[in-house]
Amino acid sequence: MTTQREQTAAEELDELAGLVNRGDRDEIGSLMARMSDRTIARGLRQLGRDDLLELFEQVPQGRVDALFAVLDGEVRAELLTQLPQSRAVALFELLDPDDRAWLCQRLPGEVWQPLLDLLPEAAREATLGLMAYPAGTTGRVMSPHVIGLDVDQVASAALAQVRQASSRTETIYMLPVLDHGDVVVGVVSLRRIVASDPQTPVVELMASPAVVVRADQDQEEAARVVREAGLIAAPVVDEASRLLGVLTVDDAMRILADVDEEDAARGSGSEPLRGSYLVASVAELMRTRIGWLLILIVAATLTVNVLDYFEATLAEVVTLALFVPLLIGTGGNAGAQSATTVVRAMAVGDIAPRDLPRVVGKEVATGLLLGLTLAAAGVLPSAWFAGWAIAAVVCTSLVAICVLATAVGSITPLLARKAGIDPAVVSAPFISTVVDATGLVIYFVTAQLVLGIG
Amino acid sequence: MTTQREQTAAEELDELAGLVNRGDRDEIGSLMARMSDRTIARGLRQLGRDDLLELFEQVPQGRVDALFAVLDGEVRAELLTQLPQSRAVALFELLDPDDRAWLCQRLPGEVWQPLLDLLPEAAREATLGLMAYPAGTTGRVMSPHVIGLDVDQVASAALAQVRQASSRTETIYMLPVLDHGDVVVGVVSLRRIVASDPQTPVVELMASPAVVVRADQDQEEAARVVREAGLIAAPVVDEASRLLGVLTVDDAMRILADVDEEDAARGSGSEPLRGSYLVASVAELMRTRIGWLLILIVAATLTVNVLDYFEATLAEVVTLALFVPLLIGTGGNAGAQSATTVVRAMAVGDIAPRDLPRVVGKEVATGLLLGLTLAAAGVLPSAWFAGWAIAAVVCTSLVAICVLATAVGSITPLLARKAGIDPAVVSAPFISTVVDATGLVIYFVTAQLVLGIG
Repeated sequence: MTTQREQTAAEELDELAGLVNRGDRDEIGSLMARMSDRTIARGLRQLGRDDLLELFEQVPQGRVDALFAVLDGEVRAELLTQLPQSRAVALFELLDPDDRAWLCQRLPGEVWQPLLDLLPEAAREATLGLMAYPAGTTGRVMSPHVIGLDVDQVASAALAQVRQASSRTETIYMLPVLDHGDVVVGVVSLRRIVASDPQTPVVELMASPAVVVRADQDQEEAARVVREAGLIAAPVVDEASRLLGVLTVDDAMRILADVDEEDAARGSGSEPLRGSYLVASVAELMRTRIGWLLILIVAATLTVNVLDYFEATLAEVVTLALFVPLLIGTGGNAGAQSATTVVRAMAVGDIAPRDLPRVVGKEVATGLLLGLTLAAAGVLPSAWFAGWAIAAVVCTSLVAICVLATAVGSITPLLARKAGIDPAVVSAPFISTVVDATGLVIYFVTAQLVLGIG
Repeated sequence: MTTQREQTAAEELDELAGLVNRGDRDEIGSLMARMSDRTIARGLRQLGRDDLLELFEQVPQGRVDALFAVLDGEVRAELLTQLPQSRAVALFELLDPDDRAWLCQRLPGEVWQPLLDLLPEAAREATLGLMAYPAGTTGRVMSPHVIGLDVDQVASAALAQVRQASSRTETIYMLPVLDHGDVVVGVVSLRRIVASDPQTPVVELMASPAVVVRADQDQEEAARVVREAGLIAAPVVDEASRLLGVLTVDDAMRILADVDEEDAARGSGSEPLRGSYLVASVAELMRTRIGWLLILIVAATLTVNVLDYFEATLAEVVTLALFVPLLIGTGGNAGAQSATTVVRAMAVGDIAPRDLPRVVGKEVATGLLLGLTLAAAGVLPSAWFAGWAIAAVVCTSLVAICVLATAVGSITPLLARKAGIDPAVVSAPFISTVVDATGLVIYFVTAQLVLGIG
């Protein structure tokens, strides 16, 4: 079910794409005048790098600043690179310091360095302050503009302070309460300030201890804190609980969306694609994927060696080869199921590396049950197809491979986390390859034993 | 980098687990007195169903209500089932209508029906109102409690209205502006109200047209609108733009987190696990996985049939069997990469089913490049290992399989979406199986042609 508004947006985007193809500038201008800023932003994201600058020039005067504020980070980066420096600086200055810091991280030095140098001093300092935090930390993405209330204030004074500072801060809805100048002792929502008697001391309204995040804390972890606690914003503090900035829920959502995209990509053996799919070139798609494919194919030569080792057995009973894809496919699937479950459970904090014995025990028990069920379902069809002896080999291997796959699938991500590696990197495809080779050994050894060959 | 607070929480949870194992109630009580509500909530989520009720009874009096407010939905559902009805109703009444509607959706009728009957009428009506919307729609998860401003009001009157209604509404930070009684014509943030001159008309402060979502709109789609626009909340309206409720950012984050979990699970061929991993029984883990494994193994019998068909070829050149796992593994990986990229690009709205020709063209071009690169890298090692003829067969097949895999990997999710099926359901594992069987046909036909056999 799409809304009227979205349907209109889709039609406008189709029309825009058509006009861009025909290069009809006048029509583009009058179409854009009818489109909302957000729809134009989507259009700029989708229609590709080559036409970007030309299209941006058709945006109605007076709407350029508002439009730039809702543009996607990747599109902003592209525009800042392509625009003449004077216009780029003007747009760059409009952004919040955290958005500027993000762009400096993404753009080459020769693009961001001059832009930064041309900023007014306060804006430059705020941006450089954030860039001093290591990439991936909360300090890098926080907003330094935050109102701190004094612990001795009453509600009416707090409201007056908020009114005054409103234009210079990222959020006014979550207000840290400070003691000793800058130590966060609690937070109070604007909602409580507005709803309470003007003479109520802030200290009576605040929640304490406050949910805070640390500037040197991992971004993803901090974003999960905001999501789990259902906050509009969390104060960002240093190791002595001093207020440094604020992490807002929209930044938290953006961080988690990026992480999910990264996990999904890595879980299928590729790197995340930055920016819009239709804009990405085939070379970029290739670049995000070829590395992993090469690693995985090198790992897969293990299976060639295993089969080579058992070539005599294979030559004696060619029928054995028929079940190879089915067996290793099932092992790969069972391993991917375990790995995905364990990676997610770690991500939401349900399990930690110290739970390894319990987790593996549970997964292996599940693997045994899965294997027995599949074997029970498969024994008659395989016997009918290839005889009882082969059926016995296939079904026994199926059980062993499921146990192996769930064990590898659960141990690998837990060990990766312990070693400080992103568990998503070593999940599904990596596990499939390991399980493939080991599963083949199990299969052929079982065959040698049951069939009395080799 | 974890904060002090989180480290303390982890230690407290370990201590709690130890005390639960020893059944030491007095110590549990005094430990809980030191723990924050959120840490206790995490403990209840992690420590399992059997001890849940007993543990909940040890929560210090006077903190029970606050604790219940931060509990996970699954834990709430379990507690409402286990507690005596009178206490269950008292806790049920504390919740927001949308949380109650969610629980009614999850609990069996014999549990929620009596609870709902015992609620005060207003609370019951609010809950039933939400439950009237189909599952999966925004109406089901919105909050019906929202303040609407009159289009003729000035800022000071709006602020007075907010003060008065504050306790009964889900959010006061996003305020829909209404004309003709209940038609949304714009929204104004509390921030603008607070920062502006008290005599400013609301109509001068509001953003119009407002970003709204529809009650009959898909939850995930509405949540993405909130995330994309970086909103604190969006008004929920009917087809005539009449105000029905509000969708807040924390509900949007929860919806998107559930969707991501579901997509991740389905992408690895299992159903999402509701609730905490350590609490789930082996039978539950089994239940989320066995269905897909059975479907996939039945599909995998296709590969057995293909190999059976080529058994004579295989018997003549057993060496061909050695490369089967490597080839189908690579096909599966390349297909999973394409599918994941396409599924994500659709999810964020970058591509739609109508882009099918462009997407498939791009993916096939990428597949060709990937295949050629892998073949170039593999030709010498495979020739050294198995001779030039086999190497020619393997490398040619590699290219064809990569092209096939990227085509299937990109077409399948687009067609699934067009047919109204969740693309994540038919992604990686399904695609691997299809590519496996077709890839084997390509491999053996190539072998017959190149080696002149069959």
